[in-house]
Amino acid sequence: MNSQYVIGLDYGSDSVRCVVVDAKNGEEKGSAVCYYPRWKAGKYCDPTCNQYRQHPLDYIESLEQVVKDVLAQCGKEVADNVCGMSFDTTCSTPVLTDREGTPLALLPAYAENPNAMFVLWKDHTAIAESDEINDLARKWEIDYTKYSGGIYSCEWVWSKMLHCLREDPSLRKDAWAWIEHCDWMPALLTGNTLPEKVVRSRCAAGHKAMWHASWGGLPSEEFLATLDPLLSGFRARLYTHTYTGDTRVGGLSAGWAERLGLPEGIAVGVGAIDCHVGAVGAEITPNVLVKAMGTSTCDILMTSPEKIGERVIRGICGQVDGSVMPGYVGLEAGQSAFGDIYAWFRKVMSWPLRNIAHADPDLEDRILNVLTEQAEQLEPGCGGLVACDWFNGRRTPDADPRMKGALMGLTLSTSAPAIFRALVEATAFGSRAINERMIEEGVEIEGIIALGGIARKSPFVMQVMADVIGLPIRVARTSQTCAAGAAMFAAVAAGIYPSLEMAQQAMGAGFDMEYMPDPDRHAVYNRIYESYRKLGTSVEDF
Amino acid sequence: MNSQYVIGLDYGSDSVRCVVVDAKNGEEKGSAVCYYPRWKAGKYCDPTCNQYRQHPLDYIESLEQVVKDVLAQCGKEVADNVCGMSFDTTCSTPVLTDREGTPLALLPAYAENPNAMFVLWKDHTAIAESDEINDLARKWEIDYTKYSGGIYSCEWVWSKMLHCLREDPSLRKDAWAWIEHCDWMPALLTGNTLPEKVVRSRCAAGHKAMWHASWGGLPSEEFLATLDPLLSGFRARLYTHTYTGDTRVGGLSAGWAERLGLPEGIAVGVGAIDCHVGAVGAEITPNVLVKAMGTSTCDILMTSPEKIGERVIRGICGQVDGSVMPGYVGLEAGQSAFGDIYAWFRKVMSWPLRNIAHADPDLEDRILNVLTEQAEQLEPGCGGLVACDWFNGRRTPDADPRMKGALMGLTLSTSAPAIFRALVEATAFGSRAINERMIEEGVEIEGIIALGGIARKSPFVMQVMADVIGLPIRVARTSQTCAAGAAMFAAVAAGIYPSLEMAQQAMGAGFDMEYMPDPDRHAVYNRIYESYRKLGTSVEDF
Repeated sequence: MNSQYVIGLDYGSDSVRCVVVDAKNGEEKGSAVCYYPRWKAGKYCDPTCNQYRQHPLDYIESLEQVVKDVLAQCGKEVADNVCGMSFDTTCSTPVLTDREGTPLALLPAYAENPNAMFVLWKDHTAIAESDEINDLARKWEIDYTKYSGGIYSCEWVWSKMLHCLREDPSLRKDAWAWIEHCDWMPALLTGNTLPEKVVRSRCAAGHKAMWHASWGGLPSEEFLATLDPLLSGFRARLYTHTYTGDTRVGGLSAGWAERLGLPEGIAVGVGAIDCHVGAVGAEITPNVLVKAMGTSTCDILMTSPEKIGERVIRGICGQVDGSVMPGYVGLEAGQSAFGDIYAWFRKVMSWPLRNIAHADPDLEDRILNVLTEQAEQLEPGCGGLVACDWFNGRRTPDADPRMKGALMGLTLSTSAPAIFRALVEATAFGSRAINERMIEEGVEIEGIIALGGIARKSPFVMQVMADVIGLPIRVARTSQTCAAGAAMFAAVAAGIYPSLEMAQQAMGAGFDMEYMPDPDRHAVYNRIYESYRKLGTSVEDF
Repeated sequence: MNSQYVIGLDYGSDSVRCVVVDAKNGEEKGSAVCYYPRWKAGKYCDPTCNQYRQHPLDYIESLEQVVKDVLAQCGKEVADNVCGMSFDTTCSTPVLTDREGTPLALLPAYAENPNAMFVLWKDHTAIAESDEINDLARKWEIDYTKYSGGIYSCEWVWSKMLHCLREDPSLRKDAWAWIEHCDWMPALLTGNTLPEKVVRSRCAAGHKAMWHASWGGLPSEEFLATLDPLLSGFRARLYTHTYTGDTRVGGLSAGWAERLGLPEGIAVGVGAIDCHVGAVGAEITPNVLVKAMGTSTCDILMTSPEKIGERVIRGICGQVDGSVMPGYVGLEAGQSAFGDIYAWFRKVMSWPLRNIAHADPDLEDRILNVLTEQAEQLEPGCGGLVACDWFNGRRTPDADPRMKGALMGLTLSTSAPAIFRALVEATAFGSRAINERMIEEGVEIEGIIALGGIARKSPFVMQVMADVIGLPIRVARTSQTCAAGAAMFAAVAAGIYPSLEMAQQAMGAGFDMEYMPDPDRHAVYNRIYESYRKLGTSVEDF
């Protein structure tokens, strides 16, 4: 019997990564990355107003390129034995479509219209719309924000689609429905993009669209039309069911099989959100928190529905049945700035290099390393210096985009490395605050798995994190947990494994580092954490 | 008739400055500076424990040198017609003396003993002693800290003398009394150093020693002996009266006339504290606040006793009849860090230059200039960034050395120039807080005069200050207001003018800049000042 291979496709903010792995043991047969060409050229974006749009052709062209590249590495034997593929993407990254489900920017009339393109997760043009949604939701009989900590985000689909419709009357006549990026990829490849027939994902099309089984799916027509008559009729043209990522959407269409050089009819799985898929790739198990640590963090935990019951976990971003794995409630939290805070301080420290020394810009790459070396020599708490990590607002617990960062306890002897250490400690305290909220709400946390750039590259940050939280932290061996997770989903969608747990056991790469908390430093940090909480109260009241 | 000349001698932390001026119009005939030789060599100090001691020979040798240098500039005609000299010094800078009033370090046995030397104002070795004084004062029938905002400082004479006595049993047998630097200079030059006969100054020997007419002079023997039996007997060997700076101590002794090349018998005035004398030199008038702006600020205001009545102004450092000019109550306040905060940020910004670029240290001199250029382009308040200026504790209002600095409202887009601007605004808010306290307590402030390095060198800081406070700020023309003020005191002590007011009118150099508040920016700062106050509450509670 031939080996069976599966493809995981991970659409990040800047590029798509593709891995081909042996479904038997997860062994990687090939890996490639392709950057989105129009995005890379800076098209359709305006950072001054946080407008970030991506053209559907970027996704299509980079898909063809990356699959071609990866199959060239694997050879024909492997290509012929690929039996499934699954996608993860950023989220919420939706686009308006026509009646056929075609993203408007693929129609000639809108080919260069940013409002007809995918609105990337980090686009913040729809703040006014999210405010209106929250205002209306607070008055409504059903609390549609119940499973989002009481707050609907400007980064989510209804805010964004309403914003595009308001912004651009020209496209209203063709704007029939919308689709999330992670749902469009499988729909496209299986030749089934009709809005009312597309297989939609549980968390992107579900949670981020205020879909919940308990209120019969999407928010009511009355709610949406009250919000804005521009949304009238959308609900009926969309969906009533959503699906978990282990589900098979359909078979790869003949046309796409040809274009990609893959066998026709192979399983295409339901798409899902990158951080959830990454958590599976990082071998999440029940009640183990997976922290994806990059510029921000995305924290995922799953627990059994029996343990949660009817409760709503207060102040987290998402609580979704099956968002991570079927049969479990996924809890989604995160810090809206993590590595971004270190990058901020690096930028502040680069000011003298640029403005005074006019130094080689490459030198700036050394700033964080040297700060780290010196900050490691300092004592926890740096003699009373405490920072608050809400530099980009607060995501969890209790989302509030208006929150800001702070430094308390400055003296004339406070040094740059001390400030850096305080910032690192603050990001760890922010992580601890998420854990503590879950624990307060009765959610057990039995362990922590870290993944992402910072988890693998900064032992200093990781040790501070372990010392602050007081739990061991394992670091996922692979740096490509999302693509690896997508491959696991593909293996289940293809029927190779009956469950994601079994796919994980067979295909997982395991862990290669573990940070153990130091009990003495943990005791010190327990005291400083109280100061961090107190500072947080000051920031809230400010 | 010959012209009449007077000498002003200003003993600062590092050097003594001497000016010879024409008493008729204040015209400067000569000016010289001499650095204290032992101090410059770093002797008798230990910055790690904030021990700063100065040898009496430093004062004597630099006096001879600086007078010789200045007379060499003026010529014999001027030297022969000098008719008075007055001193100002730092304070409290006291020394233990023997029965003859000789500083112990001038005795061979103690020539190298730091505890037998003058204890410079900024020496902080006596914190434990000041704590004990405050504890005892709070229990005592008479509140000896009543005119010091309820707090006796570790920088003041009783704390320091007790500390030296405790520290060093070897000198107890000879330690008979003590004397402040500003009182020792005239005593020495007039040949009258006997502790019980020395003419003592109103503010240095008065206020800083808890002397007040209303409780009969110094604190009671019982109070001092309860504090520590080591202080038993000191009160009786000291003084019951104190004198304002316009008083003539006596005539220059024959010996010192010879040593200095000045006429024998010329008037030597009562010494006084540098910032008070500087306020006179800067042409202070009633209810005009004089701000000496350097590393910290010293704020002096004088008002008529009728306006103050029996009231005690809450939370300021000093309220002293005649500390500035006879006939007025002097109010003393200040910020414990001002320019030091900018120097702190300069140091933080120099970290990348030193640690990353390994740049020429001279480049660091440019940091504050370039930060200023860029910070001037920003809007007041930098979009919600507010700092607290208590980096070195809080001096006024309500002294508390435990207070610290803070930055609130940081975002990922906060830049180094924005932080600098927030720090500058914070120092201006700190100044405003002093003004507002005085106003709350019924003290009118009719104008502001600024002097010192920052007042003359940083138009940006001065404009922010004017905009924040909402009053015009005049800048004294001379940068040597202390020496100029001492010359005015000398002219009155010599009988050339009947009052300091008349000496000021004749000899004052006036103002050469005035910063006018911008009404729009003042209105904006009124709002931001509320945030500053709120942040202060957070710092206090932290």
